Amino acid sequence: MQDKIPYKIYLSEDEIPRQWINVKAFMKEQHAPFLNPATGKPCTKDDLRPVFCDELIDQELDCTHKYIPIPDEIVDFYKMYRPSPLVRAYVLEKALGTPAKIYYKFEGNNTSGSHKLNSAVAQAYYAKKQGITSVTTETGAGQWGTALSMACAFYGLDCKVYMVKTSSEQKPHRKEVMRTYGATVIASPSDTTEVGRTILAEHPGTGGSLGCAISEAIEVATHTPNCRYVLGSVLDHVLLHQSVIGLEAKAALDKYGVKPDLVIGCAGGGSNLGGLISPFMADRLEGKTDTRFLAVEPASCPSLTRGKYAYDFCDTGKTTPLAKMYTLGSGFMPSPNHAGGLRYHGMSPVVSKLYHDGYIDAVSYEQTAVFQAAEQFARTEGILPAPESSHAIKAAIDEALKCKETGEAKTILFGLTGTGYFDMTAYKAFNDGTMTDYIPTDADLQVGFDSLPKVEG
Amino acid sequence: MQDKIPYKIYLSEDEIPRQWINVKAFMKEQHAPFLNPATGKPCTKDDLRPVFCDELIDQELDCTHKYIPIPDEIVDFYKMYRPSPLVRAYVLEKALGTPAKIYYKFEGNNTSGSHKLNSAVAQAYYAKKQGITSVTTETGAGQWGTALSMACAFYGLDCKVYMVKTSSEQKPHRKEVMRTYGATVIASPSDTTEVGRTILAEHPGTGGSLGCAISEAIEVATHTPNCRYVLGSVLDHVLLHQSVIGLEAKAALDKYGVKPDLVIGCAGGGSNLGGLISPFMADRLEGKTDTRFLAVEPASCPSLTRGKYAYDFCDTGKTTPLAKMYTLGSGFMPSPNHAGGLRYHGMSPVVSKLYHDGYIDAVSYEQTAVFQAAEQFARTEGILPAPESSHAIKAAIDEALKCKETGEAKTILFGLTGTGYFDMTAYKAFNDGTMTDYIPTDADLQVGFDSLPKVEG
Repeated sequence: MQDKIPYKIYLSEDEIPRQWINVKAFMKEQHAPFLNPATGKPCTKDDLRPVFCDELIDQELDCTHKYIPIPDEIVDFYKMYRPSPLVRAYVLEKALGTPAKIYYKFEGNNTSGSHKLNSAVAQAYYAKKQGITSVTTETGAGQWGTALSMACAFYGLDCKVYMVKTSSEQKPHRKEVMRTYGATVIASPSDTTEVGRTILAEHPGTGGSLGCAISEAIEVATHTPNCRYVLGSVLDHVLLHQSVIGLEAKAALDKYGVKPDLVIGCAGGGSNLGGLISPFMADRLEGKTDTRFLAVEPASCPSLTRGKYAYDFCDTGKTTPLAKMYTLGSGFMPSPNHAGGLRYHGMSPVVSKLYHDGYIDAVSYEQTAVFQAAEQFARTEGILPAPESSHAIKAAIDEALKCKETGEAKTILFGLTGTGYFDMTAYKAFNDGTMTDYIPTDADLQVGFDSLPKVEG
Repeated sequence: MQDKIPYKIYLSEDEIPRQWINVKAFMKEQHAPFLNPATGKPCTKDDLRPVFCDELIDQELDCTHKYIPIPDEIVDFYKMYRPSPLVRAYVLEKALGTPAKIYYKFEGNNTSGSHKLNSAVAQAYYAKKQGITSVTTETGAGQWGTALSMACAFYGLDCKVYMVKTSSEQKPHRKEVMRTYGATVIASPSDTTEVGRTILAEHPGTGGSLGCAISEAIEVATHTPNCRYVLGSVLDHVLLHQSVIGLEAKAALDKYGVKPDLVIGCAGGGSNLGGLISPFMADRLEGKTDTRFLAVEPASCPSLTRGKYAYDFCDTGKTTPLAKMYTLGSGFMPSPNHAGGLRYHGMSPVVSKLYHDGYIDAVSYEQTAVFQAAEQFARTEGILPAPESSHAIKAAIDEALKCKETGEAKTILFGLTGTGYFDMTAYKAFNDGTMTDYIPTDADLQVGFDSLPKVEG
């Protein structure tokens, strides 16, 4: 095979990173601080302590340490499924007839089916260390809930997952995976919380929303002794944990002297993208490279490409601190025909700031085109990708086809965040030719923008 | 970590075996030949040519070559998902408190979700090389059909999969994976074949059976130009292809000077077990080791532990050659409460012969105990196992617990053939406490034995 790079570059377990990279410490300007919605003032650690574990709050607010050690216990857990393979897409390249060299970092080879486990294990570990005995969270598509269930089974923590009711009904198999790992899965809204009962009384028969599930999970966490709430994306400490993706990818490429010209990631809450790009972005921020970064989002939920850079709530229930981010407004709801994840109204404050400052480009695709790319990828590279990941595949294929036109042999790296084994209902719609696209009108988006809180900053 | 063996031993791509090992060439006595049911005489190559590819027939009948080269094109495909990891089950060992050292060879890290891809790619490659343009097969649980669909997408072969109707209805997601890889999936019995129409006329509304699906697939293969039938287990050439599992496992263990005392595999048709044990069995047959081998089967379909060693048809439709094997009779049907695969009435002739000659032991387990082992494994080792694979897990745990009693630090290797992501209906029954066990009575078994053909041999 050409230039002797194997199909899959596996690092050894000794090469698993021993420290996460904190991209914020490389940024010239930090994103605006979280605000307490009650006071309009920056959140203090004490504001956050009832909700999040102490160590995670420290990580959330740390803008100075470039590297943060990964505890041995987390490294040991990582050894059960990491290092993940960095794959050279030889077969896809040949099918495209492109001179581009395409690599992907594949995070789907674990039972959670995605990169989510990287942060789930860290958050469960810090909870356990603090003497916490149970955690709560919400899940939509179910990858995050599955990952957290696995981590909690390992550390002996009780785990309560509020799963959006429609998703719980449509994806009963995801729910069973979580139950097999000992988690309690509750369809949200439920009668187990004050906020759930209120919503059920006001909207009998509602299918729920991620925002409602977050509010239920936070209510339980703050009203249960020794319990905390954990979140699977958006927040800075989640991006920090996910930097293990980028660090491994960079170490693998460095072995062969390869420098990516372009790094591509799908973007919902931003944790996979932020984690993948962190070490490469650090180099660029230090002026060592001019690597280009590309965020890919669904046209149906276009927070970066069509959102506003503003303070907003992180949940639709408006109970969280305010974050400065690209957002469609917490009142925005993606169209029901949208398959898979990437349906969050906002975007990681770190990714938002980097995008705002011109370090990241963004593009959006409609889902039928995304599934066409997914099918081509499955049939060439052999892996059935998650709908989320397929956004990055689509962008990588388009960039590779541009190279075919220009004759440039660019090196493209993208994040293949997970597998689509629990998304076959969406694949069926695609296979049947019944999948539809949706691009919100400006009027549709205005509904979300009208929900933005009135905050200067 | 103790004795410096990593959690996962990955070979490099250069270490993928370049030749399969043909365990038959090490056996002092061969299994009895296939018989033509019409003549009662051994099958000739010409008898088999209308059904199987020529090269596969040669492999099927080869008892002399100890090693058979793997074509470069197949090795290149293997590089997309192999070498598969050999995992040291440190976390499970600790949970059990056993001095035993447990290893498992994990074949589930590919989209087919199992070892089946190892033979699917070989069979598709030889078909393509012979100028065949389409293949047919049957699938029950769906792993084999998925693997063959992937291989056919890669080599540009048309692929028609007859899927047992009840399975097709209960596992629509498996069907969609195959469709995504371009296969045509037909619920069997269907009106696309003579045999299907006959069965539908006689049994309107039947849910079908593996035997009927085999008959339909063979009818189409033998009536379509440039088409052949392919089978995912039982046959000698399938075991040959699956020897890549054992060869990689042995190479990985050899790196650390580890010799297994016991090798365990689940057994349905026998291809995974046969492939895993091949190189270790070759050593034993040559008197180099006294490794013990253990086949694990469901108590509900106990071909080795309660079957007869006799000539039988390979399908319930009685259209195939007769094979000498341990069998429950082609008329035996496992109870409907049986989850997952391992529901074949017979057993690989090679495995049967080795068992008959005392080289392999066998044990059977009821499914509730198997799912208990699956849950323990998932919560410790992090991988949600297939129900089939979980039979091997259960036996490995029991053997490790025996070591705990005796204080012996045995080295146990088992095959983790796949993941259970498409088996969550069975996990739900287990999680809900509604899973039931079933052991056929002697009278139940007699029904199957009565279906055995009257053949001496």
